[in-house]
Amino acid sequence: MTGQDKYEKIVELARRRGFFWPAYEIYGGVSGFYELGPLGTLLKKNIENKWREWFIRRHQEYVVEIETPVITPSRVLEASGHVEHFTDPIVECLKCGRVFRADHLVEEKLKLKVEGMSIEEIEKIIKEHDLRCPVCGGPLGNVRLFNLLFQTTIGPYKGNIGYLRPEAAQGMFVAFKRVYEAMRARLPIGIAQIGRVARNEISPRQGMIRLREFTIMEVEFFFDPEEPECPLLDKVADTKLRILTAEAKKRGEDKPEEYTVEEAVREKIIINPWLAYWMAVARDFVHELGVPYDNMFFEDKLPHERAHYSSQTFDQLVKVSRWGWVEVSGHSYRGDYDLSRHMKYSGQDLRVFKSYPQPIKTKVKKLLVNKGLLGKDFKAESKRIIEKLNSMSISEVEKQLKEKGYVMVNGYRIDEKYVKVVEVEEKISGKHFIPHVVEPSFGAERLLYITLEYAYREKDDRVILSLPRDLAPIQVAVFPLLAKKELVVKAKEIYNMLVNHGFYVVYDESGSIGRRYARADEIGVPAAITVDYQTLEDDTVTLRDRDTWKQIRVPVQALVETLQKFIYRNLDLEQLGNIKPVTKPS
Amino acid sequence: MTGQDKYEKIVELARRRGFFWPAYEIYGGVSGFYELGPLGTLLKKNIENKWREWFIRRHQEYVVEIETPVITPSRVLEASGHVEHFTDPIVECLKCGRVFRADHLVEEKLKLKVEGMSIEEIEKIIKEHDLRCPVCGGPLGNVRLFNLLFQTTIGPYKGNIGYLRPEAAQGMFVAFKRVYEAMRARLPIGIAQIGRVARNEISPRQGMIRLREFTIMEVEFFFDPEEPECPLLDKVADTKLRILTAEAKKRGEDKPEEYTVEEAVREKIIINPWLAYWMAVARDFVHELGVPYDNMFFEDKLPHERAHYSSQTFDQLVKVSRWGWVEVSGHSYRGDYDLSRHMKYSGQDLRVFKSYPQPIKTKVKKLLVNKGLLGKDFKAESKRIIEKLNSMSISEVEKQLKEKGYVMVNGYRIDEKYVKVVEVEEKISGKHFIPHVVEPSFGAERLLYITLEYAYREKDDRVILSLPRDLAPIQVAVFPLLAKKELVVKAKEIYNMLVNHGFYVVYDESGSIGRRYARADEIGVPAAITVDYQTLEDDTVTLRDRDTWKQIRVPVQALVETLQKFIYRNLDLEQLGNIKPVTKPS
Repeated sequence: MTGQDKYEKIVELARRRGFFWPAYEIYGGVSGFYELGPLGTLLKKNIENKWREWFIRRHQEYVVEIETPVITPSRVLEASGHVEHFTDPIVECLKCGRVFRADHLVEEKLKLKVEGMSIEEIEKIIKEHDLRCPVCGGPLGNVRLFNLLFQTTIGPYKGNIGYLRPEAAQGMFVAFKRVYEAMRARLPIGIAQIGRVARNEISPRQGMIRLREFTIMEVEFFFDPEEPECPLLDKVADTKLRILTAEAKKRGEDKPEEYTVEEAVREKIIINPWLAYWMAVARDFVHELGVPYDNMFFEDKLPHERAHYSSQTFDQLVKVSRWGWVEVSGHSYRGDYDLSRHMKYSGQDLRVFKSYPQPIKTKVKKLLVNKGLLGKDFKAESKRIIEKLNSMSISEVEKQLKEKGYVMVNGYRIDEKYVKVVEVEEKISGKHFIPHVVEPSFGAERLLYITLEYAYREKDDRVILSLPRDLAPIQVAVFPLLAKKELVVKAKEIYNMLVNHGFYVVYDESGSIGRRYARADEIGVPAAITVDYQTLEDDTVTLRDRDTWKQIRVPVQALVETLQKFIYRNLDLEQLGNIKPVTKPS
Repeated sequence: MTGQDKYEKIVELARRRGFFWPAYEIYGGVSGFYELGPLGTLLKKNIENKWREWFIRRHQEYVVEIETPVITPSRVLEASGHVEHFTDPIVECLKCGRVFRADHLVEEKLKLKVEGMSIEEIEKIIKEHDLRCPVCGGPLGNVRLFNLLFQTTIGPYKGNIGYLRPEAAQGMFVAFKRVYEAMRARLPIGIAQIGRVARNEISPRQGMIRLREFTIMEVEFFFDPEEPECPLLDKVADTKLRILTAEAKKRGEDKPEEYTVEEAVREKIIINPWLAYWMAVARDFVHELGVPYDNMFFEDKLPHERAHYSSQTFDQLVKVSRWGWVEVSGHSYRGDYDLSRHMKYSGQDLRVFKSYPQPIKTKVKKLLVNKGLLGKDFKAESKRIIEKLNSMSISEVEKQLKEKGYVMVNGYRIDEKYVKVVEVEEKISGKHFIPHVVEPSFGAERLLYITLEYAYREKDDRVILSLPRDLAPIQVAVFPLLAKKELVVKAKEIYNMLVNHGFYVVYDESGSIGRRYARADEIGVPAAITVDYQTLEDDTVTLRDRDTWKQIRVPVQALVETLQKFIYRNLDLEQLGNIKPVTKPS
């Protein structure tokens, strides 16, 4: 175990025991793609289901989940701005043809921050410092933008371009009106999605942290911008968020400070209460994966660091052994950007209508046109005069009448005999408006890696994966103390009972009991059940805790219930039975 | 409700209440893509989880789940044969440019079966019958093959072609060796996956039945072809499968006959016991979605109807109102086709090694070369003679020695002084072999539609979605009898209690109680709880059964347990309490 850093140890464990490994290994691999093995898939499902529980099911009064396609017609991503903005600057070696991220090259070679710079500025720096190909030393070409959307063609017609979605969000925006109506037209409403997205990164090199294809988990939370209050905020008012504010960053600071949610909202550090609420949920959710509060904070992104659609974005960062602070979620105030753009590009009205509790009386100005008199005096011309008058703005008509006593229409002077501006009272029963949106967004594979990293421990030269018990891929291990027939039969009976009660269980009879405990600890099985000779006498088994290595004896008939309490209610062994004196190393 | 067929009614309900609708509606839609709304997503997750329970979790001794990418490098799909074979014949109108499925055109216009015909044969038929563009009447061009893989480019280099996977199977084959080793190298092993796939259909027109992007659920089940026995077969030996055999089809029959699993295997109607086992599981799984046994059967596909990799395929067909018999799953014997191809294309050894219980002694022939004598007699030439001898087949050497008394090597006569063939005894500890594979494969969206169709009922001019209770998207509805404060407070308290206990619940206080029951029935909520004035007195509520409209009274403190029995153990109301006399229509 020595000589490797923690990342390498986890990667080696992940490959050997079946959590994850680079995809298409037998074909030499394709960077940016990973495969999840049996344990990784179970762990990821458990993380997804926990996210679903925290962000959707518990909030089912507000939040619903939908599923939309990965393949997206180009028009949708033109509307969203991705076809134009979802790019990275690249530069090609003129000698060997290799392509590099131009910004990364400058940042690595010159230790310069280039975020927010134009491609011309980056190119100028490369030329001035005579940066060369890091592989072959050849000269570099011009810096250009590379679009990160994976492109394809939908159907048999060439021009019908589609892209793989880079985020699930657009699916929620495009389906917003339909979902809103199916959910009986109430606001606020959150629309969530868990699904695959793809981003054609230039040269991804950070394993599970930067993938070209991954699972996004995001909520688009729609609300009336005139009623931004969050009725759930009280529940998290005292929750402490560690925030590195934009102000602090501008002062050159890089350490977060602690604010309660209430403070952060009151002091407008977080510009919207719902944004703050979901950040508080995100903090506790990531904590549930095993990350201590001190190892995470929220970073307020400066305008040039934000995506094109956002007016405030916080990244939630978690400390990772190899890469330092890594983003695990983004919290953006997207305003009405997306719905406005889709209205414009689709020509559909995506506004919602809200009735006022009672109609509001309001005075509005109207044009009063004397059509009879116009017809009489202008004959055939009158129709075009009336059309023109109606197409003019009321304030323009009013202005001309006031200043000149007439309005010029198609070369005619139309005076107050023919047209007047009057003020009338109108009842308005409600308003049409475009909802605003805040978005919490997570990447599942990154959370999976972080969960493994925070679970990884070494003890007496053995590896223990102290995963939160309810996230463990396999919940129970069942061992006969020895591979003797009578013990094996009983152990298999217990194995079957536990499978029938919904657990994932491993059965293992090969090798010493110590080795079997070690194999189970290494993949994070929280509870190990051993069938020994006492079992055959009194129908009790030992239950061993992965983390403390303590044991209790449990009657077989109480086993299912005891395990449920141990795994899903996280009770200590001491709360479930008498700790057994340890007679030999286990 | 009149004038519409069942399909139209379901589609209308699905759109209005949020099960599903065509994707990208605001942009005019893109055929072959659907979006799942809040209820559709919950229903689909429940179907997926039931599939996972039936095909994976209950079989966890054999079957594991993995996750592999959708984007697949071209080499993988060249190996699998998809780049070459995954095509449909198309023909283009020379006047309007529209593209059609050539085979469908012939089948629809001429009522001819063309499955298995070459493109030349189809083209000949089109020419002979002067078939024309069904839209503009223009002449049609040549028939050519269109590949149904969605193509893209991975990374910034043009030549790096990738495709969206058309099936999850290849992910399991490519990862097979890694998974096999992580699972301690035992056979049989099933590797399952639930995930998105994409097929670029020419002009999909069957709604949720034929999608360009959908969720596949499949198991690749690997076993030793010399030990094809299925130890689980006894459990399903008496299960009756309705099968339309290849023999019966050749005789022109189109009605299935009933066979027990045991018969089907014994009479070799199903060529492999594991294939039969998974078909029996599939039968019961689809039945659990609400499909009567009489409305499904298995069709043995004739050689020209099968995919390129298959040596036997059964389609599981279910009767659907609009389209007749529709395929809901495929059961293929893929043999060693895929692993062999990936061995060839990747150059990696994907065989497994199996130790015999004890080494087998066997006699093998070996070449005995007298190197000393050869060196002495042939000097510098001897090295090349020895090399050549070793490169020759033993049987060739033996043959020459027997026939001529010597072997010709590089122009020299080498006789038995120098080389002999001897028989020696060797111990063989095991064998290397390529596992064979059977595959059950399902499409989730199609099952979702079928589940809705079999749940759809009309009663007293109202719609009831009699979904299997454990599949219902929303499990409980909570209503205050009237929208009075004291009833509302109590109802919301019960709503919160049920949410905290893991249920999906709707709360509804608007409109008459009858209308609210109807709204809940229409989306298949199995249990409706009503809080009335008696609740305030004795803390009991009514529980109404969606299907029978019968009611019982349940104490609030027993509600969670009662609902769990009602929904997940499918108990009747009569088993849970006293049926309440109905005093008014509900």
